[in-house]
Amino acid sequence: MILTFMGTAGSGKTTLTREFGRYLEENGHRVAYVNLDTGVRHIPYNPSLDVRENVTAWEIMEEGYGPNGAIVESYDKLLPHVEFYIDTILRLNEENDYILLDTPGQMETFLFHEFGVRLMENLPEPLAAYLFSPDILKKPYDFCFVKFFSLMIDLRLGTTTVPVLSKVDTVRDIERYRRYLEDTDYLTAKLKLDPSTQGLLAYKLCSMLPELTPPTRVVYVSAKTRDGFDELETLAYEHYCTCGDLT
Amino acid sequence: MILTFMGTAGSGKTTLTREFGRYLEENGHRVAYVNLDTGVRHIPYNPSLDVRENVTAWEIMEEGYGPNGAIVESYDKLLPHVEFYIDTILRLNEENDYILLDTPGQMETFLFHEFGVRLMENLPEPLAAYLFSPDILKKPYDFCFVKFFSLMIDLRLGTTTVPVLSKVDTVRDIERYRRYLEDTDYLTAKLKLDPSTQGLLAYKLCSMLPELTPPTRVVYVSAKTRDGFDELETLAYEHYCTCGDLT
Ligand SMILES: Nc1nc2c(ncn2[C@@H]2O[C@H](COP(=O)(O)OP(=O)(O)OP(=O)(O)O)[C@@H](O)[C@H]2O)c(=O)[nH]1
Ligand SMILES: Nc1nc2c(ncn2[C@@H]2O[C@H](COP(=O)(O)OP(=O)(O)OP(=O)(O)O)[C@@H](O)[C@H]2O)c(=O)[nH]1
Ligand SMILES: [Mg+2]
Ligand SMILES: [Mg+2]
Repeated sequence: MILTFMGTAGSGKTTLTREFGRYLEENGHRVAYVNLDTGVRHIPYNPSLDVRENVTAWEIMEEGYGPNGAIVESYDKLLPHVEFYIDTILRLNEENDYILLDTPGQMETFLFHEFGVRLMENLPEPLAAYLFSPDILKKPYDFCFVKFFSLMIDLRLGTTTVPVLSKVDTVRDIERYRRYLEDTDYLTAKLKLDPSTQGLLAYKLCSMLPELTPPTRVVYVSAKTRDGFDELETLAYEHYCTCGDLT
Repeated sequence: MILTFMGTAGSGKTTLTREFGRYLEENGHRVAYVNLDTGVRHIPYNPSLDVRENVTAWEIMEEGYGPNGAIVESYDKLLPHVEFYIDTILRLNEENDYILLDTPGQMETFLFHEFGVRLMENLPEPLAAYLFSPDILKKPYDFCFVKFFSLMIDLRLGTTTVPVLSKVDTVRDIERYRRYLEDTDYLTAKLKLDPSTQGLLAYKLCSMLPELTPPTRVVYVSAKTRDGFDELETLAYEHYCTCGDLT
């Protein structure tokens, strides 16, 4: 089965790819790692497929591009090879139990670029783990933001997306996060008290959540302590089963 | 008044900042330009304030960071100076008619970083122009995506956001775009015919749009032909007036 780690820069995708992969391997699974980030310098796992063999953001910067321009240009250069990536991942998927895809440092390189969209649309029922770290969650409306951002990924890529709070080893009061992320009524009630523009919009958006999606399970992980790894594995397995590929 | 150009990499922010600024200056307005992109090499306007005087993504890459890491790190380094940027923009705002803010190449550097969030929350009623280029709009659900992405910006930054279709000189059938972007009933009807996961989610999301926001005006611009510049100016002016700063 194919599990894609997505999330904004620094949210912990690469570290989780490595650690969760190790965990799966220790539990006897065959795991293949795929690096889709043209801009990463060192990766802590051994990839079976690596976009940097085709193009790196570095070499494009040497042509005079700025870092952002170079990243976009690198995916432009990958686009004609998208079929190769799809085929290789499909082959790896037959030879392994898990394929872990590590995505670009900036999520929008993937969400807004045809390379990411085409790749994901052509893979069999990939599960997307949308990582966000605790430091972006300050006000109640921030929780509403991540919930909708996760839906935006579904909408753009057609994947099933699991919201994953990363780096939970850095937070003390995990129950607070849990409540805001899982109890939509609680979040909505809190938002109702916020008279700001954001509060009002968030209140309206969150009130609609129950009609939009079934209550989403959120996974709380730490690549340091391996908290939540069992739950992520269970969730991936359940997703895989309901797809009908294996029961 | 403060106008912020946001949008994913390559959507045309920098070019529009320059061209729209020129247009305003030619019409007798005092315009100040602010560059918030640490990773841009050449900018085609003369900025009154430039984050690169504090830090550039380049110098951080020389320390061994990859391009993404360097971009994030550069905003970490700017964060302690956020008050300086707020104060300078406020001062520029008193001395000029328009302040044009050109934002980082990757939108999420701004949306997910405390620097962007704090900056925007502390500026007086900035108007955000959310630029997206025609090439990301292929299927009906893509139109739903950009409409909601624009709401996500409101939610994260508390700004009023105008969706702006950029590079309209590159499209032939502008009426098709116009209809999908402005006629929510039409878009919803089209989505209802799409049985894919994305189609279904988009249908549900778009059905809710009328309850979430008043019908949004979309601006269609070209930095090449200056199409839509008059409308953007009118919109900015109206936004400014209703804020009560000047009537
Ligand atoms: N405390 C803690 N730190 C973590 C965890 N996971 C990652 N980090 C740290 O967060 C930083 C970013 O981790 P990465 O794995 O490179 O994140 P990424 O999302 O791949 O980053 P980019 O690809 O550069 O956008 C590193 O300094 C990691 O050591 C975690 O579970 N707990
Ligand atoms: N045809 C056409 N091309 C445009 C227009 N505006 C920008 N471009 C082109 O689009 C490309 C990106 O333009 P930029 O202004 O650098 O876009 P940006 O959003 O600032 O890009 P980054 O900051 O690098 O993310 C350049 O090649 C521009 O010449 C337009 O109105 N019409
Ligand atoms: Mg990474
Ligand atoms: Mg730019």
